[in-house]
Amino acid sequence: MRGPARFSLAGSAGIGAAALADLLGHWPAADGPLYRLLATRIVRLADTGELPAGLRLPPERDLAAALSLSRNTVAAAYQLLRDEGMAESRQGAGTRIVPHRTTPAAVHRANGFFAGLLETSVVDADLTLAVVDCAPQVAAALADPAAVVGGIREVTGTSGYFPLGLPALREAIAGHLTDRLGLPADPAQVIVTTGGQQAVDLLIRCEVLPGQPVAVEDPTFPGVLDALHRSGARVIGMPAGAGLDPERLEHVVRTHRPAMVYLIPTHHNPTGLVMPAGHRRRVARLAAAHPDTLFVDDMTLTELPLGDTPPPAPLAALAPRQPNLVSAGSLSKVYWGGLRTGWIRASAGLIARMAAAKAAADLGSPAFPQAVIAALLNDQHDGILKWRREWLRARHDALTGALRAALPEWTWPEPDGGLTLWVRLPGAGDSGAFAQAALRHGVAVVPGRLLSVSSGGAGSGGAGQRSEHLRLAFTQAPDVLARSALALAQAGPGAGSRARG
Amino acid sequence: MRGPARFSLAGSAGIGAAALADLLGHWPAADGPLYRLLATRIVRLADTGELPAGLRLPPERDLAAALSLSRNTVAAAYQLLRDEGMAESRQGAGTRIVPHRTTPAAVHRANGFFAGLLETSVVDADLTLAVVDCAPQVAAALADPAAVVGGIREVTGTSGYFPLGLPALREAIAGHLTDRLGLPADPAQVIVTTGGQQAVDLLIRCEVLPGQPVAVEDPTFPGVLDALHRSGARVIGMPAGAGLDPERLEHVVRTHRPAMVYLIPTHHNPTGLVMPAGHRRRVARLAAAHPDTLFVDDMTLTELPLGDTPPPAPLAALAPRQPNLVSAGSLSKVYWGGLRTGWIRASAGLIARMAAAKAAADLGSPAFPQAVIAALLNDQHDGILKWRREWLRARHDALTGALRAALPEWTWPEPDGGLTLWVRLPGAGDSGAFAQAALRHGVAVVPGRLLSVSSGGAGSGGAGQRSEHLRLAFTQAPDVLARSALALAQAGPGAGSRARG
Repeated sequence: MRGPARFSLAGSAGIGAAALADLLGHWPAADGPLYRLLATRIVRLADTGELPAGLRLPPERDLAAALSLSRNTVAAAYQLLRDEGMAESRQGAGTRIVPHRTTPAAVHRANGFFAGLLETSVVDADLTLAVVDCAPQVAAALADPAAVVGGIREVTGTSGYFPLGLPALREAIAGHLTDRLGLPADPAQVIVTTGGQQAVDLLIRCEVLPGQPVAVEDPTFPGVLDALHRSGARVIGMPAGAGLDPERLEHVVRTHRPAMVYLIPTHHNPTGLVMPAGHRRRVARLAAAHPDTLFVDDMTLTELPLGDTPPPAPLAALAPRQPNLVSAGSLSKVYWGGLRTGWIRASAGLIARMAAAKAAADLGSPAFPQAVIAALLNDQHDGILKWRREWLRARHDALTGALRAALPEWTWPEPDGGLTLWVRLPGAGDSGAFAQAALRHGVAVVPGRLLSVSSGGAGSGGAGQRSEHLRLAFTQAPDVLARSALALAQAGPGAGSRARG
Repeated sequence: MRGPARFSLAGSAGIGAAALADLLGHWPAADGPLYRLLATRIVRLADTGELPAGLRLPPERDLAAALSLSRNTVAAAYQLLRDEGMAESRQGAGTRIVPHRTTPAAVHRANGFFAGLLETSVVDADLTLAVVDCAPQVAAALADPAAVVGGIREVTGTSGYFPLGLPALREAIAGHLTDRLGLPADPAQVIVTTGGQQAVDLLIRCEVLPGQPVAVEDPTFPGVLDALHRSGARVIGMPAGAGLDPERLEHVVRTHRPAMVYLIPTHHNPTGLVMPAGHRRRVARLAAAHPDTLFVDDMTLTELPLGDTPPPAPLAALAPRQPNLVSAGSLSKVYWGGLRTGWIRASAGLIARMAAAKAAADLGSPAFPQAVIAALLNDQHDGILKWRREWLRARHDALTGALRAALPEWTWPEPDGGLTLWVRLPGAGDSGAFAQAALRHGVAVVPGRLLSVSSGGAGSGGAGQRSEHLRLAFTQAPDVLARSALALAQAGPGAGSRARG
């Protein structure tokens, strides 16, 4: 078994140019000379432990290429770091972050994807995060809970500790799955989590040991990659840019016998594609044949079709009693991300293990909002969903229309649903370099590498996988999306490849 | 480095009688013959993976002693398990749980302490969990947030994702620490967590590697033991039943160089004692001399003194810029546990690492309640605190008065604050057996072993440490506490030792 990546020693490791570019995030979006902004950002990453002491920075030439900057700018930034005692260069050993107090655990892989959540964005348009406005029905219920919740005192009259979730919400979720999504569920088969991210993280913490293989689609939701890399799992990517080939999945399961297979069969993130019904039946048969592999169906985007055709039933609906077929989901994309309300639907035994793990992690999510959300799920779901789908289609149409006009060479698989486009740059463009150029035109986008299993991170020493793809979220207002397409065209569809020439 | 306990193989392990008694929890609190109730409960634990496949059950004689039952009852329960195909016995190999589908990760230590949160309690009085009623000001604000929060739309108008916490709440917590608790804090030094449990769990996940030593007071808060055992840390207990000896702490830090030292210096859980000011200065000096050890001051109970003397300042107040002196806390015991609002105060660099870990764990706690809590902290804290202290003193006085009358031989250190008594049974009584007897009289109490580092768990094979101590929470209504003391007297102060004779 391979040791988890986060245990690697800082002193012997370097970081690739592409990985450092990811960590840098939105660094040029401030006033001042570029070399100073770059140095300041590197200092901050060193201060927070994301660039651990002793780490070797990439060669100036490589970082300049990854950031579409001149080599002189990078050289000046490194010189400033040395002047301020944050870095040192030795003959033949490159430039290293100077040791300061840090802990071994800080030397984990930091993929930088969620760094955007951690700081105030100063870009004009952030197309990196697929986050939605709060639905008006949800905002109204939060502001006046007494209008939607019958027995408020029945909640505040309890201890407030519900590791499994408030009983009323477990019941509402079970009913929602059974009645609306075609997935039979009993409340005993449901645990409430702090968003879909915690659903995935708890499943990994409980069911995957460090070094065990876990198979995911490549590209996939970056949150699951972050949780997997922190857990020390060995992640196996299965190409899915045009949909997952079930032959490939069967081969990976037979060959690697993974502890977990994580799939987004309905409105896949980032492609928006739907796994056909026939493929789903093959996955269910595979689960029956491999009881020691947990198959996770992430249903977070299931209720967001862009057309009028309802998607096929979730995987677990094909074998509701198969204990290794697990469903997870969230209300973050239909209601509001600020609710942080997710769920797992599994066998009662697995749910009990999750609840013990959740008790150790946080003793349960906040109790009161769960009563509000249960009421919304029971009484207002159809109205919220109708509102959200109109909201979503307007945005999808605005972005795709503007892109077709401004960047006719860009292509993407037509999404069946979800919140994102998976765009391919023309002419073998490097999406990492393009994302840097786009930032300087005020638009933040996600280079495909960050959604890919083989992305290089701190300590990996590699340059990371080069990707021709971008993920664009169409969750900003339609006029912002239209403006962003023009700005992206100014950044140049082949900017990445040009800067490297 | 020793491997973490949860990786031990189920097939080779047994569970001690005391550890199984812990896992069984409230099993006799239902109708029916005891042997059937016992077998049913064991089946359920096997089904949920808490008793993993292949695990050897304790000898009938040992389990009978731990549960204060006749050996015939245990023998009948084991026979029922065999009859139903859940267990098998082989000559000389004891009785084992029959293998069924489980995962390696399920073979973790399950200490059973929080099992009480996971099922509806049917006991008359539960004195196990130190959970408080919701303060009326808090209940009112939750029911009508518009009355306390000025800009509700400023919250629901955001993406809702705040891995560091809502800015308004980070600011309110920093002000609260600075102005009321004597601990200078900037909002950049604060992260909001889902209760104090997540504060502790995130610190462990980020700063402790599997196999690294962590030192805690013994007894201590069981939630930290649960999180530590799941992390694979090597836990070192320091006797603290009558207060922690600073010599002992210094010796442990010098000898073991732990990654973390977790302390509850103010109104220690379970003893309620306060670490004197002179000892605190020694801890601060120790932290300065050992920069690679993180010293965590859990301040969750700080604002709950039983007398009128304010406690000494928190540890970090003695050296506010010492980066390895970290404070954590929660509003769960002053406001309401259902808020699930905790915090960490640390250097800005460590806070940034925690935020990255929290993003991977759950992308942030629910956003909306944080605005309500910020308003309460800013505007209503003093009123809530006054109400809570009166609430608490009435309960402390009710329990201690009733215990002195009904059980004059019981002794406990007079608590300076907090929510619990650390009671010593007379005549070398076994608190594990006594807790079982008490359950049959309708009162649930915590045997001291569950708050102790050396408690045996599934897979440990040992019988667990015998303890003469009980933890009694005085958070139920005063009349319930008075009734409970009478029921405990009926269970017999020396019931444990009698059953063993």
